[in-house]
Amino acid sequence: MIGVEKPDFQTILEEIERETQAEFGKGKVADYIPALARVSPRKFGMAICGVDGGEWVCGDAKEAFSIQSISKVFTLLLALDRLGSGLWKRVGREPSGSAFNSLVLLEAENGYPRNPFINAGALVVTDCIASHSVAPIRRLLTLIRKLSLNQTIVIDEEVALSEEQHGFKNAAIANFLKSHGNLNADVGVVLNTYFRQCAINMSCLDLARACLPFANKGVMPSSGEVVFPAIRARRVNSLLLTCGLYDGVGNFAFRVGIPAKSGVGGGIVGVVPGHLSVCVWSPELDELGNSLVGTAALELLTNKTSLSVF
Amino acid sequence: MIGVEKPDFQTILEEIERETQAEFGKGKVADYIPALARVSPRKFGMAICGVDGGEWVCGDAKEAFSIQSISKVFTLLLALDRLGSGLWKRVGREPSGSAFNSLVLLEAENGYPRNPFINAGALVVTDCIASHSVAPIRRLLTLIRKLSLNQTIVIDEEVALSEEQHGFKNAAIANFLKSHGNLNADVGVVLNTYFRQCAINMSCLDLARACLPFANKGVMPSSGEVVFPAIRARRVNSLLLTCGLYDGVGNFAFRVGIPAKSGVGGGIVGVVPGHLSVCVWSPELDELGNSLVGTAALELLTNKTSLSVF
Amino acid sequence: MIGVEKPDFQTILEEIERETQAEFGKGKVADYIPALARVSPRKFGMAICGVDGGEWVCGDAKEAFSIQSISKVFTLLLALDRLGSGLWKRVGREPSGSAFNSLVLLEAENGYPRNPFINAGALVVTDCIASHSVAPIRRLLTLIRKLSLNQTIVIDEEVALSEEQHGFKNAAIANFLKSHGNLNADVGVVLNTYFRQCAINMSCLDLARACLPFANKGVMPSSGEVVFPAIRARRVNSLLLTCGLYDGVGNFAFRVGIPAKSGVGGGIVGVVPGHLSVCVWSPELDELGNSLVGTAALELLTNKTSLSVF
Amino acid sequence: MIGVEKPDFQTILEEIERETQAEFGKGKVADYIPALARVSPRKFGMAICGVDGGEWVCGDAKEAFSIQSISKVFTLLLALDRLGSGLWKRVGREPSGSAFNSLVLLEAENGYPRNPFINAGALVVTDCIASHSVAPIRRLLTLIRKLSLNQTIVIDEEVALSEEQHGFKNAAIANFLKSHGNLNADVGVVLNTYFRQCAINMSCLDLARACLPFANKGVMPSSGEVVFPAIRARRVNSLLLTCGLYDGVGNFAFRVGIPAKSGVGGGIVGVVPGHLSVCVWSPELDELGNSLVGTAALELLTNKTSLSVF
Repeated sequence: MIGVEKPDFQTILEEIERETQAEFGKGKVADYIPALARVSPRKFGMAICGVDGGEWVCGDAKEAFSIQSISKVFTLLLALDRLGSGLWKRVGREPSGSAFNSLVLLEAENGYPRNPFINAGALVVTDCIASHSVAPIRRLLTLIRKLSLNQTIVIDEEVALSEEQHGFKNAAIANFLKSHGNLNADVGVVLNTYFRQCAINMSCLDLARACLPFANKGVMPSSGEVVFPAIRARRVNSLLLTCGLYDGVGNFAFRVGIPAKSGVGGGIVGVVPGHLSVCVWSPELDELGNSLVGTAALELLTNKTSLSVF
Repeated sequence: MIGVEKPDFQTILEEIERETQAEFGKGKVADYIPALARVSPRKFGMAICGVDGGEWVCGDAKEAFSIQSISKVFTLLLALDRLGSGLWKRVGREPSGSAFNSLVLLEAENGYPRNPFINAGALVVTDCIASHSVAPIRRLLTLIRKLSLNQTIVIDEEVALSEEQHGFKNAAIANFLKSHGNLNADVGVVLNTYFRQCAINMSCLDLARACLPFANKGVMPSSGEVVFPAIRARRVNSLLLTCGLYDGVGNFAFRVGIPAKSGVGGGIVGVVPGHLSVCVWSPELDELGNSLVGTAALELLTNKTSLSVF
Repeated sequence: MIGVEKPDFQTILEEIERETQAEFGKGKVADYIPALARVSPRKFGMAICGVDGGEWVCGDAKEAFSIQSISKVFTLLLALDRLGSGLWKRVGREPSGSAFNSLVLLEAENGYPRNPFINAGALVVTDCIASHSVAPIRRLLTLIRKLSLNQTIVIDEEVALSEEQHGFKNAAIANFLKSHGNLNADVGVVLNTYFRQCAINMSCLDLARACLPFANKGVMPSSGEVVFPAIRARRVNSLLLTCGLYDGVGNFAFRVGIPAKSGVGGGIVGVVPGHLSVCVWSPELDELGNSLVGTAALELLTNKTSLSVF
Repeated sequence: MIGVEKPDFQTILEEIERETQAEFGKGKVADYIPALARVSPRKFGMAICGVDGGEWVCGDAKEAFSIQSISKVFTLLLALDRLGSGLWKRVGREPSGSAFNSLVLLEAENGYPRNPFINAGALVVTDCIASHSVAPIRRLLTLIRKLSLNQTIVIDEEVALSEEQHGFKNAAIANFLKSHGNLNADVGVVLNTYFRQCAINMSCLDLARACLPFANKGVMPSSGEVVFPAIRARRVNSLLLTCGLYDGVGNFAFRVGIPAKSGVGGGIVGVVPGHLSVCVWSPELDELGNSLVGTAALELLTNKTSLSVF
């Protein structure tokens, strides 16, 4: 970007919205719980926040949706606050090469999850918070509201309940972790906290704002507050790039080339260190569970701006 | 056995008791729950029941112990009574080549357990009973008491409770099965039933008597009652031989050569079709979870009598 | 069988031939090499040899076919002759729970094959012979001809060559074993020996005769010669039952209930200890690579005669 | 780096050389072939090439060593030249989550290797070259010499021969790929080419120069020549970051944070897009096969300069 004119992000967002039209209809909205299945497949929003304070939005960028696995980024921040590098005794930092909810590697590696973004690792992270705090969800919401500059962010309790009623695979994983001594809190408490964190509703703009410190060495540009150390921003970004999109991580890095985290609600947040954070929302998922149109939109963004980390 | 003099089983049992002395101290009593860990490692009993009505015992053959996985033989009988060959839509008939509580194959095969004797398969079998009966454990005890000619057989409720408090791996498996639609009853109900069936206390003599119909085409010699069809005896025997000792099944067939089922309480029941049933109890387990002295005792029995199926 | 009239095997064979007609057309002739693909799918032969010297045949029982994996039974005899129980340091005795040519378990277990009947184990067995003898194939043919009472048995060199040209999977396995130090001879020598042993042509009658000592405590009834010890007969029978039909072993034991070994040429040999050996040939294979009509025929045989080991 | 003073790379290299002294003795020189085992564990060199033409070296940076798997970067370039995105039909772009020479995933995914940097993928890449060119190694050397500005680069034929004599695991993989139709050339030809490409000798300076176009949008700064398109630089960098250090990729990204490729000769090349390429050499390897001191040196470099991509 040195000596290069700054991209006109508003125009680029509008181009992306137009150019992704052909991608709709190719994916499939998550339907494992009714509350998610009801969302319109045509929703599309995108928001960019620059480290210099600029903000650009298009489409449904201000409509709240279920953040699902994107919540794992924020629980990771809380767990790192508590445990620092001690966290890595309980969860690894390697891509799994397997589906996000696989138990195979977890068994082979005796209950030590590969990374904090597969479900097993996220449950361990949630346990780190739940077993250190009487009100883990309140702490999480406090963090998220502050980072998003939005005090109205809440949990969709219908989604949370529905997750719990259909969450047998996660219950299997949590019990498995417990059997290996890698959960401290009660299994039910960890699961309940996990299902509620996934059911938080946020908009693209909320999420882009909340992730902006990752692009800015841990500093919120709006206030100048250091919310976490620069080295943590760098390290979480590395985890996002190598583990943030499950078993689609290599392909995403190849096509898009930025640290990112997806959720089955159709959201993807991305970070271009030194430049911007971005969030896109489109509920249709590809076969790996990542937003299909969202991936295409981010690929267009990095191609149009050359803002990949590579 | 044609034209061969009948073995003197009493003498043979006493020889076996003597000759296995050197094996004690090489294994390890199950210690995952306190109630099992308390059992003396020196316990040894053995009982043989002939299809002609003879009974021979030695050592602690009349002392009750925790039958654990041997209960899976009896729940299988109840499930086959209910569902017949329909059972095989929900559980397979192949050795797993893996540990008894592994989730790897279960995931690879989408929640269809390899056989009714690994934990996953046994949980499905228990579900078949629990979801068809309001009092599955009462039905199970009724069957076992009848087959054993012993109305005093009961559950050790302390063991059952302890299993439940430490049963996270089984809870993981049950939730996994539920996530694949292969449990009908509530997860908690299935687990509770399963932990209680494993906590039934029986003696070697009880167990040898209870398994005698497998050696006698489904008929109880004492009463002449057909408790199950001859073809079911043959088929369950085949399952015992190929799947009854977890991932030690090949080695057990090689050394001992009879259909058998082991439990972590240290019991092993065996069947020589046309001849006899046998049960040995010795709490020290080998690394696969089978009674170490018990296996040696059965090997001596088949070597001394040439009563292997091979 | 005590006190039961002896079955009329000739009538039973003819019934089986009639009753299996409906099974033809459901399987698929092995087509990975042209020489095997050419065989007529309608071929059907069956031969029974009794320990008392009786022989019964039907259909194409005297026509030679490619024995393929059935050869593994005879190389195992030669290796046990050489190494005795030392063989088990190099190959296991457990069913694999996986396809016959899988590399997964072999990698997990560092080049120690699960049993002598999966391809990896058979290659180790062949290596045991090839690295101890300058003319392993000649020794093998000498053994087979003697057991079969047929000096005209030869290798189909066209099949052997074709196997070698298409044998990349076996070459992968052999190189993998070599990398783990579990092949002594040159990889090429082992593979060549292996492909040639699989290309031996024998008839049902040849194979039933050759396997009769397994039903007769190691003794050839025709001559009274002890060709191997009784304990070896019993042990090889146990290996056949737990490992002889690859990942179809549990189902075969359930349906048929006798020790057996199959080959992709469509042959299956079986053993009823104390009674008889049997061989059936029908080239159409089920999805696991076992003769489809052959399995049905053996199931009819054990149902009609109650001669299962269970 | 905008508005930041340029790092004094010479001073930094000397600091790194000093500060890594304590790391020596913790790893293990590759010893699977004698020619590699002979290299002194105390060797240490490091070279940096800036996109503006600057070059900095320290220690043994001009001494040639065996590049081993680093060669996979250059064969990938040749294969992409030939096949463009058609290459991805034959090899994937995802981290494997497994050891570099594992066959497990390869079997599960039917001979489609996860990425071009595990051995299976590299063999497919080599096949792409070998089956399109009569002299693949000559083409490779021509490319490498040009990129390195060094016409004296040659193959260490002793190493190549030694690799071939000990290369059973790679032979297993190659035969496995062939059995799945994912090798076109003869297995022996592919292996020979592969073993020779791994036996190329280059210095840190050679390798840093050769990789500089990856930091410079595909352009050699020395000549201004576009050696590959900018988008290819970006994409290969993403592959290096997600797949370049085998199953240590996540940890390397976390600690160091730049695209990189390691070899068992002890070399690691790294790329900071827009800034520089770097190569470090130190033969002691960590348990995953990556240079232990080399990783520490690169971590110091990115910490001292903040030149991580994150």
